[in-house]
Amino acid sequence: MLDCGSSLSRVAIAYRTYGTLNAARSNAILICHALTGDQYVAERHPVTGKGGWWDVVVGPGLPIDTDRYFVISSNVLGGCMGSTGPRTVMTQAGRDDDPAVLWGTDFPPVTIRDMVRAQKRLVEQLGIARLFAVVGGSMGGMQVLQWAASYPESVFAAVPIATAPYHSAQNIAFNEVGRQSIFADADWQQGRYWQSGAIPARGLAVARMVAHITYLSEEALTRKFGRRMRGGSLAVFNDMFEVESYLQHQGSTFVRRFDANSYLTITRACDWFDLAAEYDGNLSAAFAGTRTRFCLISFTSDWLYPTAESRAVARALNGAGANVSFVEIASDKGHDAFLLDEPDFHRTLAGFLGGCAEHAGLAA
Amino acid sequence: MLDCGSSLSRVAIAYRTYGTLNAARSNAILICHALTGDQYVAERHPVTGKGGWWDVVVGPGLPIDTDRYFVISSNVLGGCMGSTGPRTVMTQAGRDDDPAVLWGTDFPPVTIRDMVRAQKRLVEQLGIARLFAVVGGSMGGMQVLQWAASYPESVFAAVPIATAPYHSAQNIAFNEVGRQSIFADADWQQGRYWQSGAIPARGLAVARMVAHITYLSEEALTRKFGRRMRGGSLAVFNDMFEVESYLQHQGSTFVRRFDANSYLTITRACDWFDLAAEYDGNLSAAFAGTRTRFCLISFTSDWLYPTAESRAVARALNGAGANVSFVEIASDKGHDAFLLDEPDFHRTLAGFLGGCAEHAGLAA
Repeated sequence: MLDCGSSLSRVAIAYRTYGTLNAARSNAILICHALTGDQYVAERHPVTGKGGWWDVVVGPGLPIDTDRYFVISSNVLGGCMGSTGPRTVMTQAGRDDDPAVLWGTDFPPVTIRDMVRAQKRLVEQLGIARLFAVVGGSMGGMQVLQWAASYPESVFAAVPIATAPYHSAQNIAFNEVGRQSIFADADWQQGRYWQSGAIPARGLAVARMVAHITYLSEEALTRKFGRRMRGGSLAVFNDMFEVESYLQHQGSTFVRRFDANSYLTITRACDWFDLAAEYDGNLSAAFAGTRTRFCLISFTSDWLYPTAESRAVARALNGAGANVSFVEIASDKGHDAFLLDEPDFHRTLAGFLGGCAEHAGLAA
Repeated sequence: MLDCGSSLSRVAIAYRTYGTLNAARSNAILICHALTGDQYVAERHPVTGKGGWWDVVVGPGLPIDTDRYFVISSNVLGGCMGSTGPRTVMTQAGRDDDPAVLWGTDFPPVTIRDMVRAQKRLVEQLGIARLFAVVGGSMGGMQVLQWAASYPESVFAAVPIATAPYHSAQNIAFNEVGRQSIFADADWQQGRYWQSGAIPARGLAVARMVAHITYLSEEALTRKFGRRMRGGSLAVFNDMFEVESYLQHQGSTFVRRFDANSYLTITRACDWFDLAAEYDGNLSAAFAGTRTRFCLISFTSDWLYPTAESRAVARALNGAGANVSFVEIASDKGHDAFLLDEPDFHRTLAGFLGGCAEHAGLAA
């Protein structure tokens, strides 16, 4: 049963694991991915051929140490890397499924809570009653907050990174631009593009471009590109600025790995996220009586989910008497800092997890 | 002769005037409009039927007092409200023009300096050797800076508002998203949409939506819309957030009054703007020996052209020994504050112009 009231008769959740589950089944860390992430956290991506999206953080000897922890990462419900979503075959209760008919835009709307419910079932199927930690950045951080609120007994430690307890009007506005850009592409065909084989590549690329701007700080854009031209000077009016070429590249590579209907589904889930609203507007109530240990991490130059929003979560947790530490990392890399080589961030994460492991009685 | 090296054999500049030119021809104020503005500063717009875009600032008894000053406002070169641009008939030196052939994307690229050159000729044709003041916000402010640099003897006072001496990587990035969104619309037809009568309305609307986000502060969006839904609750998944409905409205009304090829031309002109680059990277040199009186105005919550960029202009002017005042107005309305009812801003503008009028010997 989904928050929207519909049911999915069968749900597949694609996942990957790294490291070894200990005999007590007590060393599992669930990693929740961001808007366009997936389960390929720390290994070669099967579509792009590039490294995992968090391979600077997850691996042997890294902050999320796969020599010590058993790491689980799953593709969100509604995603497009194997989990049930708009790109999978439409399942019909009591009838044979037609493998030629995909969900597309008929896929029911899902929420962050629906995604977390599906993850909970996966974790249970893996025989894990309590996760040592749930960790994620951006939309992944929203899932971490939802886990801690919905299943407090199942989360020993929670690390919401560069995230917010709800989507702001500006967050919604940028997502809506992306959606309208997809709708504006004639190849979108009201979401039935999978029938013709065409994909709304131009619209989806523009959606990615605008989102990508919000992932970087103005300082980062200036440092990386400034006003440099690609191969020319201002005198040559057809030349591009490097920042334009970079964004176009981001857009065109994205459409090869991501599904437009999934993009619509997942941005909607983010926009609907408002954890306090589930508790009559009282965010502290979401964490009442929690024994989970929290470490909130934000980045100074993140203007997508600014520090103030993590601070609001910290206040709510304090109001609930929770065990919480809150670290703002100085970085000029913007929201994307959580994906990048940020030594202070990595030290914070490793230190917090190490301390929690001691409290949890995990062998070093 | 344009900066790109091409020439236009004939140029029309559409303009409006308000108030009366005095006998000494010394009370003229030129108002420069922003990206999507036009010459209808203080009167009913012929296309939208709405009031002028600056009718809170320009009029009898208002900060730019038409009882006292003679106000000129013109549509920029490359615009779409009557001045020569992509939507006008292609002119061919030495040949008869075919009224069925428009410039479209064959219109040569223009710069802010080209726009100002055309304005200078207009002002000369009106018999005005020296403007009492040149005033403008956003892209209009860039024109003000260019006027002061190119024609210092012709500008008694200059008021660049909510502007910057160059376009940053982030500014360029947002403009590029808008351009790509237009290109992605199948109705754009490589810019030849005027041949079929279709217009790339969906792409242009998305361009407007993303630009509009940058005109507002996060605070303004939160105050105006927050997470309110239009006519429903979170339980109704097809309902829209009010901010989405607002942006869609901004997009759909914009396409009725603006031309996509003009949008491409003018955003390009902004992106190329880099006043210091004309002076070997030394912004002070742009204003060497100037006797113009400057009043720079910025707004605290403007993240499109933040205060730091006006401060850089102030520093350059100080370096040139210019007469400069710099006022940062506290406002949570974002970049758009210069268009809105902001009493502190209006007092600053009226006070500066009044003081300059005394120095210029204009009758009160």
